[in-house]
Amino acid sequence: MEKLTVIKVGGKIVEDAGSLDRLLDSFSHIPGNKVLVHGGGRSATKIAASLGIETTMVGGRRITDAEMLKVVTMVYGGLVNKNIVAKLQARGVNALGLTGADMDVMRSVRRKPVCVRADVAGTTDDIMVDYGFVGDVERCNGGMLATLIQKDIVPIMAPLTHDGCGSLLNTNADTIAGETAKALAPFFDVTLVYCFEKSGVLLDENDDDSVIPYINEDSFKRYVADGVINGGMIPKIENALSACKDGVSKVVITKAEHIGQDKGTVVGLACSQDAVQ
Amino acid sequence: MEKLTVIKVGGKIVEDAGSLDRLLDSFSHIPGNKVLVHGGGRSATKIAASLGIETTMVGGRRITDAEMLKVVTMVYGGLVNKNIVAKLQARGVNALGLTGADMDVMRSVRRKPVCVRADVAGTTDDIMVDYGFVGDVERCNGGMLATLIQKDIVPIMAPLTHDGCGSLLNTNADTIAGETAKALAPFFDVTLVYCFEKSGVLLDENDDDSVIPYINEDSFKRYVADGVINGGMIPKIENALSACKDGVSKVVITKAEHIGQDKGTVVGLACSQDAVQ
Repeated sequence: MEKLTVIKVGGKIVEDAGSLDRLLDSFSHIPGNKVLVHGGGRSATKIAASLGIETTMVGGRRITDAEMLKVVTMVYGGLVNKNIVAKLQARGVNALGLTGADMDVMRSVRRKPVCVRADVAGTTDDIMVDYGFVGDVERCNGGMLATLIQKDIVPIMAPLTHDGCGSLLNTNADTIAGETAKALAPFFDVTLVYCFEKSGVLLDENDDDSVIPYINEDSFKRYVADGVINGGMIPKIENALSACKDGVSKVVITKAEHIGQDKGTVVGLACSQDAVQ
Repeated sequence: MEKLTVIKVGGKIVEDAGSLDRLLDSFSHIPGNKVLVHGGGRSATKIAASLGIETTMVGGRRITDAEMLKVVTMVYGGLVNKNIVAKLQARGVNALGLTGADMDVMRSVRRKPVCVRADVAGTTDDIMVDYGFVGDVERCNGGMLATLIQKDIVPIMAPLTHDGCGSLLNTNADTIAGETAKALAPFFDVTLVYCFEKSGVLLDENDDDSVIPYINEDSFKRYVADGVINGGMIPKIENALSACKDGVSKVVITKAEHIGQDKGTVVGLACSQDAVQ
């Protein structure tokens, strides 16, 4: 089975011209099949502010009303996505920018109002939150993406899906990356790479050299019990392990500067790191 | 040879929710292979104004500096394009939104400063104008588009191209439509439809029922000599005739409300209208 790398990068990297250029240089040198999934939240917040639209986040997630949906459609689907595509074409990568609506590649359902715990929302009590035009992914059309990839096309995926009824929906880029990797697993030997501000999952959060090289289900449980892995890293690794159960060969958590190098934390189902290298 | 229809609609239609829905209803009912090319200038001007960016037009064309390029990338490539794609998916059309950078489908060269005649610029003297990040199309990858279309994918083309060196370029939507139609002519029997605010080319500009049903090179010369066809309609028909010489079967100039119906002015190379029906 041919190898395929799905790389997810956040807004911080793609929104700065210098770090974006370095990322795209590294990305263009990754051999073989690849997919890039990007964020763009910081730009969306900035453009929204310039348009007089206030950004409201609850538990780190954006409330997307009709006006904010227009902003994220412009910024994620237009500004960020198409600039990446043009810059990759200049590097000889045959990039194709996609939202979930394009060729119906990723369909989602609009999230119903949900109860957000007080500690997540930063409120005194648990609160009900309507995130608005936000989508929870229902299905990803891996066959269509695989057909493109087999023609040497490199999908560049914006964090937008659609509901099949005419509306775009704002969707978490980590989720887009995970669903894309899983949907491509029947066709390729998939490595999913989450770029992150640190070198990997750290034994000591203040020491960037203390990267845990390999995490499987057993060691994850131990690290959580010992308090080494905590906070927002817990759902990240849970999602990574879940992706591996759904056919993804391995998930790598690393710095954007290190993509294409053998660095960072590998999350997998095997008993040892050697088994997934 | 299978038939294919390339439809170009301007900003006025795609920017109003009601007229856009009616257009997409008609478009979704056109049988067989099709491509939609859209504008979006009015939205770009509006969003630019909200962002405090002034729009300057010379001879009906937008000056596209770096800030305006961001705006048109957001509006054409994101807001307008992706909303059309999502709305067509809801109508069972497997739409794919594209700029010229996506899969390198349309490459252009940045326009050098040009001399604009005083009567066009509305100035007392001829002036040199640098339109900025504006592209003149160099080539359209018809083979790539044909491959997609043969898989029942419907390209939705935004008026943006790229220079192959990493920059997007703002490009006239009429030109995109013409170049797309010509590039697809080796693969399909292509009809190019320009949607227009009037029912077609009129014998009497105040009578919307006075549509000239058919124009070929000979009758075009006569209509121009008689003053029936004048102003901005002259380059439109010159371009239409040029497209026919480059393999497009016919060009139809009609109202958006009439697409899919046998109405409007047909421009072609044959001696009579019957020959191109």
